[in-house]
Amino acid sequence: MSDQPETSCKTVLAGTIAKGLLAEVKQGLSELNAKPPHLYGILANDDPAAKVYADWTGKTCKENGFEYTLRTVAKDDAEEAIIAANQDDSIDGIIVYYPIFNNRQDQYLQQIVDVRKDVEGLSHQYIFNMYQNIRFLDDKHLQKSILPCTPLAVIKILEYLHIYNTILPYGNRLFGRTICVVNRSEVVGRPLAALLANDGASVFSVDITGIEQFTRGAGIRKRKHEVVEKEGMTLDECVPLCDVVITGVPGHKYKFPSHLLKEGAVCINFSSEKNFGPEVKERASIYVPAIGKVTIVILLRNLLRIVQNNRSQKVPTPALANGEP
Amino acid sequence: MSDQPETSCKTVLAGTIAKGLLAEVKQGLSELNAKPPHLYGILANDDPAAKVYADWTGKTCKENGFEYTLRTVAKDDAEEAIIAANQDDSIDGIIVYYPIFNNRQDQYLQQIVDVRKDVEGLSHQYIFNMYQNIRFLDDKHLQKSILPCTPLAVIKILEYLHIYNTILPYGNRLFGRTICVVNRSEVVGRPLAALLANDGASVFSVDITGIEQFTRGAGIRKRKHEVVEKEGMTLDECVPLCDVVITGVPGHKYKFPSHLLKEGAVCINFSSEKNFGPEVKERASIYVPAIGKVTIVILLRNLLRIVQNNRSQKVPTPALANGEP
Repeated sequence: MSDQPETSCKTVLAGTIAKGLLAEVKQGLSELNAKPPHLYGILANDDPAAKVYADWTGKTCKENGFEYTLRTVAKDDAEEAIIAANQDDSIDGIIVYYPIFNNRQDQYLQQIVDVRKDVEGLSHQYIFNMYQNIRFLDDKHLQKSILPCTPLAVIKILEYLHIYNTILPYGNRLFGRTICVVNRSEVVGRPLAALLANDGASVFSVDITGIEQFTRGAGIRKRKHEVVEKEGMTLDECVPLCDVVITGVPGHKYKFPSHLLKEGAVCINFSSEKNFGPEVKERASIYVPAIGKVTIVILLRNLLRIVQNNRSQKVPTPALANGEP
Repeated sequence: MSDQPETSCKTVLAGTIAKGLLAEVKQGLSELNAKPPHLYGILANDDPAAKVYADWTGKTCKENGFEYTLRTVAKDDAEEAIIAANQDDSIDGIIVYYPIFNNRQDQYLQQIVDVRKDVEGLSHQYIFNMYQNIRFLDDKHLQKSILPCTPLAVIKILEYLHIYNTILPYGNRLFGRTICVVNRSEVVGRPLAALLANDGASVFSVDITGIEQFTRGAGIRKRKHEVVEKEGMTLDECVPLCDVVITGVPGHKYKFPSHLLKEGAVCINFSSEKNFGPEVKERASIYVPAIGKVTIVILLRNLLRIVQNNRSQKVPTPALANGEP
């Protein structure tokens, strides 16, 4: 051991984490013992990034034994395309590449997708279950509710990094952890903060309007999280308390103030921009610079779960990896 | 899930943790493929607690395939008894039940025990290695240094509880953890603080004279811990920062101020007295009320390791569970 190693930070790449999850998905797929699940993509915008994501989805599907069809339509035909896909029995899951209208009409479209084909977990029923900490769709606990892909990808990364403590009971495995989420969008940041707090963490949710704390209260006695506004609290006060910092700020100008990090903090960035500068490694114990490769596997995992859920409505069979989100 | 469960704290008993460690020891014993290792106890005081511990050692040895002999001598014959045991080839390990003189003469006796038979890890060579973060006795890293039983028992408990993060490299697995040790005796508290800091933790070592911080410095870049006196720091400031609190205060009057604990802290008591009141469960995520059953298994583990080390001086073979303390 040299006296002054360069840094003690371990960088963990999403590809490494994705491998194990993909193996689980392939195992589940082989146990399904049926024709390959069919994912149907609807692309109704001109955003080149959406096209890249659509092509990447298709590639990952085909490489791993899933069927994938991409349909490109005009904005105003998206609604009819979704309705047609809902009614097509050859289609198991639907993914719509947003934004389309980039306003509330997109939320309207999200509710058009049949809940039994909603691999993105954007249906109101799934979102409601997520915030309310309701983990199953049925009383017998055979069908797990579907969680949105990016927040679930972050959770799977935290499990891989042993931030979830499996010594604690399922549902409480983040008890004792303090986590900061920089982003409070309805798509990722707020659901993620809620999921982490529902699992027992004390979460500081940060955006430009201020800081909110999500917890299950003293001794995590509440059955779901509650939110408290931390009027006047700044990053300077909140970050040094945090074991884990998760960032998702769009725009290349933003850099997280890494000098505030607690020694040995775990840092995860889900933005497509590098929210952490290289100096993050001076203080962090673990750094995950991007999560995209995990997110795409979660999409396949959700598709598999949906196929399993729809089957178990007919013949009851245990859900994939029962007892895990 | 009820709306207000009684408490979210998980109590983990030493017996549960000891089982897994004992299975490892028995596995190692069977691979040894030799006559049972022989532990030799020397009792030279009238303390009934020492007699109880000696009898308990004997019982545990015999139940698990080790040979045990207890010799009772007068105080002034202890030195000769140790020398005789050093020279007796039928004896593999020696345990002396302290205190005998209850002064510096006891430290003198500790250095009389042959280092190759010192199952308690009290020889100067072992103690030096421990503080200096030197983990092997030989250049080829075949022979692990011997660690004192009670501090090593606490470490094995922290491993069981997943406080050591196996995602991080061996030697750095407590990076990011803040730990408070209430007791700075030369026998347990100070070695324990040093071991935890050598493994990457930030440790607050507390006794009646004040608080010291043991760390490997910024970014845990130093190869062994350093100690900083925290002049004027109080438990009120230090405890709320700690993920783990470990107590070992003798005397039934002492109670740790559990109201200072961080929500979800992990609490471990190695005192024979209950240093935590029942209210610890209001705030802790995990509570280990006593550790004795783990300590006794560690004694057998050290005996096994010593036999392995002595063998590998003749024929090189890998040490037990190489890469672990």
